[in-house]
Formats: sequence, structure tokens, C-alpha cells
Amino acid sequence: MRIRPGRSAVVPQPPFSPLVARLPETVPFVGPEALARRSGIPLRARIGANESGFGPSPKVVAAVAAAAPQSWAYPDPENHDLRAALAAHLGIGMDEVVAGEGIDGLLGLAVRLFIAPGDAVITSLGAYPTFNYHVAGFGGVLHGVPYAGAHEDLSALADRARETGARMVYLANPDNPMGSHWPAEAVEAFITALPETCLLILDEAYGETAPAGTLPPIDTARPNLLRFRTFSKAYGLAGLRIGYAFGNSRLVGGFERIRNHFGLNRLGQVAALAALADHDHLGWAVGAIARARGRIADIARENGLAPLPSATNFVTIDCGGDGDYASLVLAELAQRGVFIRKPMAPGLDRHIRISAAPDSELDILAETLPQALRAAYGAG
Amino acid sequence: MRIRPGRSAVVPQPPFSPLVARLPETVPFVGPEALARRSGIPLRARIGANESGFGPSPKVVAAVAAAAPQSWAYPDPENHDLRAALAAHLGIGMDEVVAGEGIDGLLGLAVRLFIAPGDAVITSLGAYPTFNYHVAGFGGVLHGVPYAGAHEDLSALADRARETGARMVYLANPDNPMGSHWPAEAVEAFITALPETCLLILDEAYGETAPAGTLPPIDTARPNLLRFRTFSKAYGLAGLRIGYAFGNSRLVGGFERIRNHFGLNRLGQVAALAALADHDHLGWAVGAIARARGRIADIARENGLAPLPSATNFVTIDCGGDGDYASLVLAELAQRGVFIRKPMAPGLDRHIRISAAPDSELDILAETLPQALRAAYGAG
Repeated sequence: MRIRPGRSAVVPQPPFSPLVARLPETVPFVGPEALARRSGIPLRARIGANESGFGPSPKVVAAVAAAAPQSWAYPDPENHDLRAALAAHLGIGMDEVVAGEGIDGLLGLAVRLFIAPGDAVITSLGAYPTFNYHVAGFGGVLHGVPYAGAHEDLSALADRARETGARMVYLANPDNPMGSHWPAEAVEAFITALPETCLLILDEAYGETAPAGTLPPIDTARPNLLRFRTFSKAYGLAGLRIGYAFGNSRLVGGFERIRNHFGLNRLGQVAALAALADHDHLGWAVGAIARARGRIADIARENGLAPLPSATNFVTIDCGGDGDYASLVLAELAQRGVFIRKPMAPGLDRHIRISAAPDSELDILAETLPQALRAAYGAG
Repeated sequence: MRIRPGRSAVVPQPPFSPLVARLPETVPFVGPEALARRSGIPLRARIGANESGFGPSPKVVAAVAAAAPQSWAYPDPENHDLRAALAAHLGIGMDEVVAGEGIDGLLGLAVRLFIAPGDAVITSLGAYPTFNYHVAGFGGVLHGVPYAGAHEDLSALADRARETGARMVYLANPDNPMGSHWPAEAVEAFITALPETCLLILDEAYGETAPAGTLPPIDTARPNLLRFRTFSKAYGLAGLRIGYAFGNSRLVGGFERIRNHFGLNRLGQVAALAALADHDHLGWAVGAIARARGRIADIARENGLAPLPSATNFVTIDCGGDGDYASLVLAELAQRGVFIRKPMAPGLDRHIRISAAPDSELDILAETLPQALRAAYGAG
């Protein structure tokens, strides 16, 4: 490489944009495969990413296998059939729903649509890290509001949004990582309390497993509400990356300005369509998830820990110590091939989070949790 | 909705970011499904998107079907196994290759990494519209350089890059939409002629079908070169959205700052791995594509048209008239259920572009092209 005289041995190279130059290389979540590669410990129980080990519908598997030979053809960039089915499912217009590469992909687009460098964005301290990653990626300024116990603090979030003139607020209902939920009326009051120029990003990834009365009625007339759902959780299709967002057509239309139109893969579209049509499987999976939550809670209590109520496909468990102790428990489980995750924010960090899963995996949890607790207690 | 007094009936709503507010809703390419939906004319021959109707390897199809039941698990966000296989395939390090949701998705990320609003970006007039879409999306200022005949004009591109202080130059080799190619030495001279602070986006989507000596030797020491390849063309996997980019680890590492880490679907990763391992199928497909190019050229000549030499999986054909006439030919083919595309830029627009495909589809081309030409001639 040439060294230009008088420029003190700076190697000429393409500079990152000023916004990107400030960003670290990062991964919001390290995957279980990576953890196993680094530790050399084989994965025995994959119960940390809130996937559904109960799997997709057999009809979905059959539809994907049948469509595999057509993988040579680009997907429909308008996602027409999937959007039509989602619109019918939700009782809204096709121009009020957009599909994308998981909620993660859609969150990135939503931030890009509405957040310019310096804009204020509100979230809860300890809420979804991938949202924060996207806000940082577009230069937004995050303001974190502490949880109130196991719940996101709706009135504090709304207050902070008004104080900061925020452009965007993130709320997950049901909540991840705490598993709590607000009833629909509380969410509606929250929406009403926000300035109409402030967009609410309402993440309903766990909506299918929530008690009746958790999800507000759909009202796409609201000018400042986008709701996000996914096929990754109850539908058991995390691997195919299909999320969707719905709301006012002005907001949804914005995605057409910037999205990767051919981004949603063909087999994912096929799978989502088949999944949406198989009500029986969804009902079965939601029931299986509820039973697994019960068993996880039982295992926790048998070990002297306090499970929290859950509206999701995971159970958050208070380990009874501090954040360091909970981290030790998590590390000891990892040593035994059990992959789970935990919240890291102060106030939440004494908890660990365990995903609903088939009995074969929960058997391993039941076997290893007492060992992990003993080891953590001894080390702590 | 509230109307605020004194603000002339402006409905309060979340404003788009200043950058997005200037963008139109757009689709770089309208898909064949959408055309069929709008026209009501059933699709008989899908030979317009440079897909490979010869399909993926049967081993790929089997691998995808076998992996379908595991669709409940998130993909590995590090794409470890695929990147390891690509690194071995290319003879480079794993930190020198990144996989993403098609070349389209990676182009969007590359533009975001290096282009700030107002930065100059160079491309050829009539080259890949999706690249232009991403440049506009991040506020880059595009400078278009006319083709020199059927080739991108390398010396004019380099001159323009220096004149404008461009941050980025796009070059496709082999070229789309003209099917032409430059030999490796010309591309290497072009890279050397660019300032090292100007990143060359070298799109080699059609690299597998190019004559020997088209692709420059791999040299990841270059500070300003990213090369893009895909499983969408010769490998026959456009539906699964798997592209990759490789180059200097500093450039490749940048993607970790902004990419959607879980964006590459699990079945796509499985398919790409299997496709990369099946050399026999790739060889067969490249042979079949070459034979189909020959047949398309024959059909063109039989109809008095002039096919251009092609290093790609399509044949660009000079219709002998002006752009309006070529558009008429395209419209008349569409009326007959034949989906093709054409370049729109002045100088290129008298051409149409037909994808290599199995004989069953080229039979339909052979049947309909004379009809379309007669109809276009009559209408013109």
C-alpha cells in the first residue's frame, strides 16, 4: 500500500460514514451454536432463545418440502399472498400490513423510516436489545425507563416521551424478558397518552400465548401505532424469518421506500401461509407451551426459586440473589449443556429466563438445575 | 383525529426522517407474479428475472426437505458453517466473507456503511437499479456514466470517480443488463486506477457462467474492493435469498455494525452449503445455461434480431429499432404470457433481455416471438 507523504503513515482506505464510524461491531444476541463452538460443550437443552421446540405444523413442514424444488424462482417481492392472508386474519387492508425478515428486520426499517440522528427514542431499561441496536445504528438517542417491578412502566414511558419530544417509543406486550403483560385497556390508555407525533412500536411477538384481553382491538386509524408480530414464537418458525407489522397505511406504505423488496424468502412465505391456515396446530402448540410453562415453574419452585407469571413462551425466574448470582447459575447451566439467557439490566438481573420446550428438554433442566444451583451457591 | 387550530388542518402524525421524506414508494423490479395479477394473463414462460429454471441440485432439494422440521430454531446468526465453506471455497479467511439476504440486501448494507448524505457514487447509466435504490435511500448522489456500446466504460467510470471524489463505484462483471464482460486484467487495471479511498462494489452475480479469465484473482489485501456473489443465478436458489460479499476484513467487519444478524434463514443456509458442495450439479447447470443461451440466440437470429454475446445466464437482444419498438415487443410478449425485461437507459433501450431456461420455456419463446414482432411492427 502507498503511504502518502505528510500524512503520517495513514493508509488510504474508504472511510465509514460518520454515523457508522461511531458504531461498534456487535451481536445483539450470541447464538447457542456460537456458545457451543466456543466452549466446546455440546448443547443438550436449547431453551434460551424463546423458540418453540414444539415445532411448526406438520402441514407446514410438508408445504415447505413440496415447495423446495421451486427454490430457483425469486419470491414475490410484494409478498401478495401472505399479505392477503394476514390482512384477512387481522381484518384490515392489504396496504395496512408489511411482511419482513423477522421482527428484527422490520424494527430496523421502522427506525430508519422515522429516526434521524439526534432524535429521542424511549424504551425500558432491559427491554429488547435488538431495538436498541437499530436505534444506535441510525443515530437515535435512547432514553431508558426502569421497569416497575416485572412490568414496563407505562406512565413513566409516556412522561419521558413527552419530556424528551421523543419520535418513537418501544413497548413489548407481553413483555420480554420478564414475561409480564398489561391488559389491553392499559395499552390503549398508553397509546392515547402519547403525542400523536410519537410513534409507538408495539412488539406483540408473544401475542399468541397471552391471556385473552391482552391485545388491544385493531384500529388502523391511529396515526402513530405500528404493531409487530411474528411466526417465530408460537408458530414455531423462527428459522424462516417471517415477521409482519401492521397499522395505518401511511406508516406501512413507508416501508416501500426503503425495504429489501426481495428479502423475504420463498419457503418462508409458503411456510407462513400454511401456518396461518392451521388453527388446530396453533391451538395445540399454545396448549403445549402453557403446560411447559407450568412445568418450568414447578421445577423452579422445587429448587427454591420463584417463577414469575408468564404471558409468553418462557418463564422468568427470580434466583433470589443478586445479578452476579444469577449469572453464576446461568454459567453453571451452560457448563452442563443447558442454553438459557437472562436479563442484564439493574433491577431485572437477578432473574434467569427459560423457554417453554418439550419434556425431553425440561427433563434435562430438572436434572441440571439443582446441580447448577449447588455449584453457584458454592462459588458465590 | 384532532385538528390543531392555526395549523391549517395538518393532522399530527409521526414525521418520516428528513432523508426518507424525500424518497418515493418504489419497487426496483416488479415481479412476474404481480404482472400476471394485474394483467390477468397467465404466466407461460418465466424468462425475465435471470433465475435458473434448471433448478437447484436435487441434493439441495433433499437437504432442504430434511431440514424443514428444524425450522423452529433460529438460524446461526454468525452463519458460521456457510462462511467457513465459502472461505474454503474462495481460499480466504472467515473474517473476509459475509453472507446476507441476497446481493440486494448486502448492497443496501454496503451503501449504508460507506455513504453519507451528499456523497458521490458512480455507476453506469442503465446498470443495476437496486443499487441506485439503495444509494438514493441513504442520500448518496449518483453520477451515471454512459455505456460504451455493450460494455461499461471503465476509463470513464474511473475518470468520473476521480473528478467527483466519489466514495463508491459500482461495476458488474459480467454485466447486467448487457451480458458483456471485461477480462480480469481490465478489471484489475480499473481497480488500480481508482483512488484507494473509493470503494469498488464489484458485482459478480454472474461469475459462474463467465468465460475463464473473467474473474480477477482474489486479493483481500486491497483496501477498497468488495466482491459480491450469489446463489441466485447458476446455483438456482434465487428463492432462498443467499448472497455473499468478500474482501478486506476491515470492510467485511463493518457489516457486523449494522446487519440484521438473524436475517439469513436457516433453510437458505442449509441449501447454500449443499449447493456449494455439489460441483457436478453446478457444472451441469452452467452447461445447460450455455446451451440455452445458444438456443435463445438462434431464435433471435431466426427472427431477424441480433443477439449479443453473453457471459451471463441471459441473452440481450438488439431488436433493431428504437426503445419504443423494443418496449412494444416486450409488451406483445407479455400479452402472450412471456415474462421478460429490458434495459430502459438511452443507448441500451433498443434491447430486450431473455433468461436462459429449459427447452419447455424456450419453445414458448420460439412460438410467441414471431407473433410479438409482427404485432409490434404493425403497431409501430
